[in-house]
Amino acid sequence: MSVPYDLLKNTPNGHLPASARVPAIARPFVSERALKTLDIVEKFVEEECIPADAVFTRQIGETPVERFEAHPSIIEDLKTKAKQLGIWNMFLPKNHFTEGAGFSNLEYGLMAEYLGKSITASEATNCAAPDTGNMEVLAKYGTEAQKRKWLDPLLEGKIRSAFLMTEPQVASSDATNIEMSIRREGNEYVLNGQKWWSSGAGDLRCKIYIVLGKTDPNNTNKYAQQSVVLVPNDTPGITIHRMLSVMGFDDAPHGHGHISFDNVRVPAENMVLGEGKGFEIIQGRLGPGRIHHAMRSVGAAEKALEWFLARLNDPRKTPFGEQLHKHGIMIERVAKSRIEIDAARLMVLNAAIKIDESNAKGALKEIAEVKVLVPTMNLTVIDRAIQAYGGAGVCQDTPLAQMYALGRTMRIVDGPDEVHVLQLGKNENKKGPAHKARIDAQIKRGQELLGQYGIEVSDPLQINRVSGQTSKKSKL
Amino acid sequence: MSVPYDLLKNTPNGHLPASARVPAIARPFVSERALKTLDIVEKFVEEECIPADAVFTRQIGETPVERFEAHPSIIEDLKTKAKQLGIWNMFLPKNHFTEGAGFSNLEYGLMAEYLGKSITASEATNCAAPDTGNMEVLAKYGTEAQKRKWLDPLLEGKIRSAFLMTEPQVASSDATNIEMSIRREGNEYVLNGQKWWSSGAGDLRCKIYIVLGKTDPNNTNKYAQQSVVLVPNDTPGITIHRMLSVMGFDDAPHGHGHISFDNVRVPAENMVLGEGKGFEIIQGRLGPGRIHHAMRSVGAAEKALEWFLARLNDPRKTPFGEQLHKHGIMIERVAKSRIEIDAARLMVLNAAIKIDESNAKGALKEIAEVKVLVPTMNLTVIDRAIQAYGGAGVCQDTPLAQMYALGRTMRIVDGPDEVHVLQLGKNENKKGPAHKARIDAQIKRGQELLGQYGIEVSDPLQINRVSGQTSKKSKL
Amino acid sequence: MSVPYDLLKNTPNGHLPASARVPAIARPFVSERALKTLDIVEKFVEEECIPADAVFTRQIGETPVERFEAHPSIIEDLKTKAKQLGIWNMFLPKNHFTEGAGFSNLEYGLMAEYLGKSITASEATNCAAPDTGNMEVLAKYGTEAQKRKWLDPLLEGKIRSAFLMTEPQVASSDATNIEMSIRREGNEYVLNGQKWWSSGAGDLRCKIYIVLGKTDPNNTNKYAQQSVVLVPNDTPGITIHRMLSVMGFDDAPHGHGHISFDNVRVPAENMVLGEGKGFEIIQGRLGPGRIHHAMRSVGAAEKALEWFLARLNDPRKTPFGEQLHKHGIMIERVAKSRIEIDAARLMVLNAAIKIDESNAKGALKEIAEVKVLVPTMNLTVIDRAIQAYGGAGVCQDTPLAQMYALGRTMRIVDGPDEVHVLQLGKNENKKGPAHKARIDAQIKRGQELLGQYGIEVSDPLQINRVSGQTSKKSKL
Amino acid sequence: MSVPYDLLKNTPNGHLPASARVPAIARPFVSERALKTLDIVEKFVEEECIPADAVFTRQIGETPVERFEAHPSIIEDLKTKAKQLGIWNMFLPKNHFTEGAGFSNLEYGLMAEYLGKSITASEATNCAAPDTGNMEVLAKYGTEAQKRKWLDPLLEGKIRSAFLMTEPQVASSDATNIEMSIRREGNEYVLNGQKWWSSGAGDLRCKIYIVLGKTDPNNTNKYAQQSVVLVPNDTPGITIHRMLSVMGFDDAPHGHGHISFDNVRVPAENMVLGEGKGFEIIQGRLGPGRIHHAMRSVGAAEKALEWFLARLNDPRKTPFGEQLHKHGIMIERVAKSRIEIDAARLMVLNAAIKIDESNAKGALKEIAEVKVLVPTMNLTVIDRAIQAYGGAGVCQDTPLAQMYALGRTMRIVDGPDEVHVLQLGKNENKKGPAHKARIDAQIKRGQELLGQYGIEVSDPLQINRVSGQTSKKSKL
Repeated sequence: MSVPYDLLKNTPNGHLPASARVPAIARPFVSERALKTLDIVEKFVEEECIPADAVFTRQIGETPVERFEAHPSIIEDLKTKAKQLGIWNMFLPKNHFTEGAGFSNLEYGLMAEYLGKSITASEATNCAAPDTGNMEVLAKYGTEAQKRKWLDPLLEGKIRSAFLMTEPQVASSDATNIEMSIRREGNEYVLNGQKWWSSGAGDLRCKIYIVLGKTDPNNTNKYAQQSVVLVPNDTPGITIHRMLSVMGFDDAPHGHGHISFDNVRVPAENMVLGEGKGFEIIQGRLGPGRIHHAMRSVGAAEKALEWFLARLNDPRKTPFGEQLHKHGIMIERVAKSRIEIDAARLMVLNAAIKIDESNAKGALKEIAEVKVLVPTMNLTVIDRAIQAYGGAGVCQDTPLAQMYALGRTMRIVDGPDEVHVLQLGKNENKKGPAHKARIDAQIKRGQELLGQYGIEVSDPLQINRVSGQTSKKSKL
Repeated sequence: MSVPYDLLKNTPNGHLPASARVPAIARPFVSERALKTLDIVEKFVEEECIPADAVFTRQIGETPVERFEAHPSIIEDLKTKAKQLGIWNMFLPKNHFTEGAGFSNLEYGLMAEYLGKSITASEATNCAAPDTGNMEVLAKYGTEAQKRKWLDPLLEGKIRSAFLMTEPQVASSDATNIEMSIRREGNEYVLNGQKWWSSGAGDLRCKIYIVLGKTDPNNTNKYAQQSVVLVPNDTPGITIHRMLSVMGFDDAPHGHGHISFDNVRVPAENMVLGEGKGFEIIQGRLGPGRIHHAMRSVGAAEKALEWFLARLNDPRKTPFGEQLHKHGIMIERVAKSRIEIDAARLMVLNAAIKIDESNAKGALKEIAEVKVLVPTMNLTVIDRAIQAYGGAGVCQDTPLAQMYALGRTMRIVDGPDEVHVLQLGKNENKKGPAHKARIDAQIKRGQELLGQYGIEVSDPLQINRVSGQTSKKSKL
Repeated sequence: MSVPYDLLKNTPNGHLPASARVPAIARPFVSERALKTLDIVEKFVEEECIPADAVFTRQIGETPVERFEAHPSIIEDLKTKAKQLGIWNMFLPKNHFTEGAGFSNLEYGLMAEYLGKSITASEATNCAAPDTGNMEVLAKYGTEAQKRKWLDPLLEGKIRSAFLMTEPQVASSDATNIEMSIRREGNEYVLNGQKWWSSGAGDLRCKIYIVLGKTDPNNTNKYAQQSVVLVPNDTPGITIHRMLSVMGFDDAPHGHGHISFDNVRVPAENMVLGEGKGFEIIQGRLGPGRIHHAMRSVGAAEKALEWFLARLNDPRKTPFGEQLHKHGIMIERVAKSRIEIDAARLMVLNAAIKIDESNAKGALKEIAEVKVLVPTMNLTVIDRAIQAYGGAGVCQDTPLAQMYALGRTMRIVDGPDEVHVLQLGKNENKKGPAHKARIDAQIKRGQELLGQYGIEVSDPLQINRVSGQTSKKSKL
Repeated sequence: MSVPYDLLKNTPNGHLPASARVPAIARPFVSERALKTLDIVEKFVEEECIPADAVFTRQIGETPVERFEAHPSIIEDLKTKAKQLGIWNMFLPKNHFTEGAGFSNLEYGLMAEYLGKSITASEATNCAAPDTGNMEVLAKYGTEAQKRKWLDPLLEGKIRSAFLMTEPQVASSDATNIEMSIRREGNEYVLNGQKWWSSGAGDLRCKIYIVLGKTDPNNTNKYAQQSVVLVPNDTPGITIHRMLSVMGFDDAPHGHGHISFDNVRVPAENMVLGEGKGFEIIQGRLGPGRIHHAMRSVGAAEKALEWFLARLNDPRKTPFGEQLHKHGIMIERVAKSRIEIDAARLMVLNAAIKIDESNAKGALKEIAEVKVLVPTMNLTVIDRAIQAYGGAGVCQDTPLAQMYALGRTMRIVDGPDEVHVLQLGKNENKKGPAHKARIDAQIKRGQELLGQYGIEVSDPLQINRVSGQTSKKSKL
């Protein structure tokens, strides 16, 4: 029997259900079914997943070897419950896929916010990255055989997957720079090179790598050089050299692998969509994923604010003789956090609607805005909460330090902020000449109007100090 | 014949009409009629008002005396055009008033953004503060006689009005502090005291003051001490001592007056709603006005960004041998401005919808958020544009310096930022105990779960260094 | 008889004299004489100049014509007092000039901080820009005849001067872009072109323009094209087209002129240093001037903080029932201001010492740092004070708005922040390859050491999941 | 044989020795001997310690048990070298102690900057916290017996120590809140309670705890309740319950302990200075320690900037086709970092001089400023470097993530920022009434002067619109 969470809803100044807190402006886009599911998701996360996070953390073990061989049993228990509750695969948007739970990106976005409050919730509902993006790729571009072999067990949560794109030796935020070689040899493709930040690769259950490499590195069209192939993780020639840490956390058992490929051979039918289609595939893959990340980050920030508020109301903590919520500088930070979170949420929801109405390409600006805005907001809010907790904020006694580490990576994954800032700025700048033309025309029109109203265009005050004389134009 | 503005729409990378730029998330709330009106408003502002601003500025004159006796004729010409175009009194929301143009707060908000791009546009469409709030007060609380005498000419744009609330000697952002005395004597009220920041009081056409004072300063209920009375500006005993400047600008002919009342007598029927109702009246008055200010500020920021982009594309400006748009630090500022404006706009629109769905009281949080977020955003964007223009940015050659001055006051009018920050923070903090209870319950539940999964709650690593011995608890 | 300012020194928690507040780290560089003069300067500014500012402001008049023909008599009274007190021409550094008061740049910097607290103090002590820089140019590069004719009356405060460098149509922060033509014709130079931001040109007493133009625009060495000539302001062909405003202020009678030159002829002996020496002259001129500006800005920030603190302790201002200094968010802003001002001051003083020890060129980095750091700090502190004053902060009732306007230009004059940021950053970046080499060497050395200590360089955790097998390298 | 580090000094644009980079303003305070030692310290850190960090990290081991039983042998090798080089115990300031190396706080501060660039350097030179502060306590307040038993081996680097002050259940940044009980029983003291953030307690060589507790919890003078006693770490009743992590790092073998005391008995002669002297002891202990932390943080920031610059010049990293140093937004961050580090350094050095000239109490303001300014600066600079490295920045491939974690704690240790901000602000605010009195006097004096110069005090523009008439006061 679970802790009587429902009671909390009845506390004074208490808790409205998630469905009642959907921003007014977003409501027309949310179906009744989604609202109900949203409340189920919230309840599942708050009552089941967050308490389970403590067990998950301990079941992983201590030594590196243990940690990357662990599969915490509690995650399977949560998955069973989630399936029973009907909250499974909500991420696959209804207008593009039939395999999912039938929600829009906007509707799933609202749910993802809650998933972002727990380290187990996303996987528990089979909505965890990178599987989500990988399932989208397989569902959208995979052959029937590829779907049966990899998509089906992924959709059922039986296996996990990794997406191998980033490489250590180049600025791979620009995918044209990647160097992994995919060479056709008879009926096979042979892969050579190395990848890192292969998230999820540490997991024992991770069975399939979706690998971006170059089949045609000399193609003059630098967007036609890349291809995506499916590589089972137990193919000979693959070595995970090491697991990368994130601000001190190893993120086990999921982890982030640094992997080498030494003449790794896969059958030719493992090619996705066709040679040279790699760029197209990754472009399509990243858009919705950024929305998912962003809404989870909004949820993380909301959680940080909740922890912050809990600390402010801890009767044992009374610096200068007063509880923290009596201190104006704390209340100011609460208010700023409230505003920044709410603004970020609206931006993500608006971007999700743009994707729903067209697709990721049609929402390019909105996705870039969210990619830049949300992670920094999230870190700012978490950092304020950490500061309010002092020592407890940086250590294992609160979830805040780990949230900070995860949040920090969000400024880097799928391309660092700066890439998005520059692309967004350059696109906006394209409007510059038109703005200049209009402003120049407005100034010219203003001068015409001055004439029509009998006013000289030049300034009425002019000074001429020749030979001691001072003369001025007669004023208006 | 006007400058061929329409041509701009056809330029490459050019200008979509306003109706096509309504954020996706707001569209369900905007009627077809409002979309059409929005495009008319935009066209009127860009083609008529902005060029007219140059004439308006010069028609005011030079000396203080001239400037506060001026009534630029171009403003009447614009008003005539606006009436012909059917864009008049759009600010009165349809669900509360029948006198207006029949739009929701959200719909008018979208229009107000464009009005915010010109110094003449708001008055030209009879949507200028403080008349808008004053008309709302009269329409909502006025007697028939009061309406006929003052509301009708205001709605027609024949007179203007001022709202006299702020006082120089107290912290009047808290209205319980005001000191203006309103004493009943027979069939009259007698007013004594002083007011400042009486915006609009400088205008020759300003005929009526709506004055907040205390009829019952000793009432133990400090919210029942205040009353609102109507005072014609030519009542004996009134002196405008001086006009206040705003960051160097006098805002003539509108202006901001510092006014003294020396035994000013008005008939008893000039009381609004009844003695002791003053607090209720001003509370209702401020909500929508803050949305109007905020959306005009969004428009101002958008205009600043347009000027910024125009500068970046000026082929004569090539520091370090390259046009400004080739400089990454400029492009970064463009991107940040784009994001911050878009986030602010969504926040204002969401707040407007909340008001439309309930009323200003029901949108307390959303209005406060907007009041804090938008002015700072606006100043940040304007300041970036100023910096890109250098000397031209701070002087009269661009509208930016005056926009900055106006924008700066937005952090002060209707209460300084800090008042709203603290109230918002305190309200948010009320949820603190509930969050604490839930988090504590989650931690407790996590400990129960540890037990259920056979894991000790305490840390597996313990160190005991008695007498050279080191012992540790057996690990998990 | 003056206000008993001395009494203030005796108030509890009161005022230490300026000499006692010199930062500990700067004291070894300040002579006893400079300390005494510093206290005289402070007393003169606080007791004489700041009260005189009110008179100066009103003596200027109201209409544009009046304002640029005014010469407030109080400024001459202050000059007489300053000469009597021996505080005159302190800006000319002793190690380069004999004409000045015999102080180092560091010592004058300490004094300039106090001059920055009043709008009359710099001129009252003959330490006002642009005269200071112009006197340096004449003293350093002028012929005897030029010195007698222009330097002597400037040193005595009998005339004033302007420095004409900036041009409206180009990015003149890069002086190679300027277009003003200086053509030799027989025994004369003929000038054609326009200049703006010619500060001081509005003043009736401004008799001499120091003009930068091009005598050899086609020289392949783009730093040898420029020359500086002396042009009396009453030379035929000169028109001040208009005076530029700064954030709404006209800065009369000093002012900022937009001036055209139409075949303006001066004798050949008005050339300074020689044709093609223009770049060298302006380079030398700007360094110390930036320090002067910076220290005055530090003084302005200090004054803003004093006004801020005065407001916090105004017993009439009690929002939420408590004086402002009881509000934590105000106290936080005080603390931040204190820190930021103190850090900025140390940076300016350190830069001044660097100039004293070598010259402006040897202090390039330090000057650039100060140029970027100080103006933004100053604006931040002033803005906080404005906000605490609310309406009084933006209007004429406090000096804050005008201080903000002046402070804002400091991010633009002598080149916008961005120019200095980029040059500073690029210079710092030159160390990059050396840092990279050292870091690479340190990493390599670390790997050697690992070997020496018997540790494998590669990560101990390696994962290989071929055919269901899991193998790991034996750990350390 | 070491890597030829000296060669680096000869690279173009290369490396000046530390002694040549002492800020000009600080030079008069640095002896020739200190300059020489400074160069030795720099060379030792860069050539010996930084490469050794890699070995130290690996020698610690992998499992928690291993990590807190480790004593990396390389640290002893470094200590031997440091002693040979004569760089040992530099932290003990010459004007208070004879046991140290004979440097001032300022001189040691300059050295500490370099120690802050390596994780081994502080311990290698016996200048590591918390031993430094603990040695100061023993040297200043200890009995002869206490000194011989604990100070001597600490000075020789044979044992280590911990300072037990912070408690988990109260806001112990205010030391009056602590609850650890120290009860006299016969010839012994009995300790009960718990402590956390007992840094260094994890180390096997940590032999002595300096414990703050209450001997007289009911004393009406709340600053006389506390006492400090010396507790050997192997005293029965002590358990280290767990080691706290810092943003994911365990900081082994040093570590941060959470320790319980259950009837822990020590002889009465272990009392330091006397019962009730606890507050005095910790006050004296914290001042110089904050300077040490601050200068190490300056060094960390400098190191982060060096890594940042190294990345910008990595020829393999070419996003958008250009090396990172070609990107303006990166160069801007370099410049800002350069400025912020330099300003922070000057502030720390100035504070150190203030301590040297008086003591920690006389430098209260300066220490608080540094405590607030430096850690945030450090985090900002590190964060920029992390961002430039992308994935490499957050993982174990650069020192940046661990530096960030350490840097983050600096905003918390010795009291969170907010405590210092509020105290600093409150102290500054004490000057408020004096400032207000002076400003009021200046305004009054200005009004007198207006009269003397024949100008009316009131505004010349007054408006009175009675009965259609407009009258204005005659202007000036």
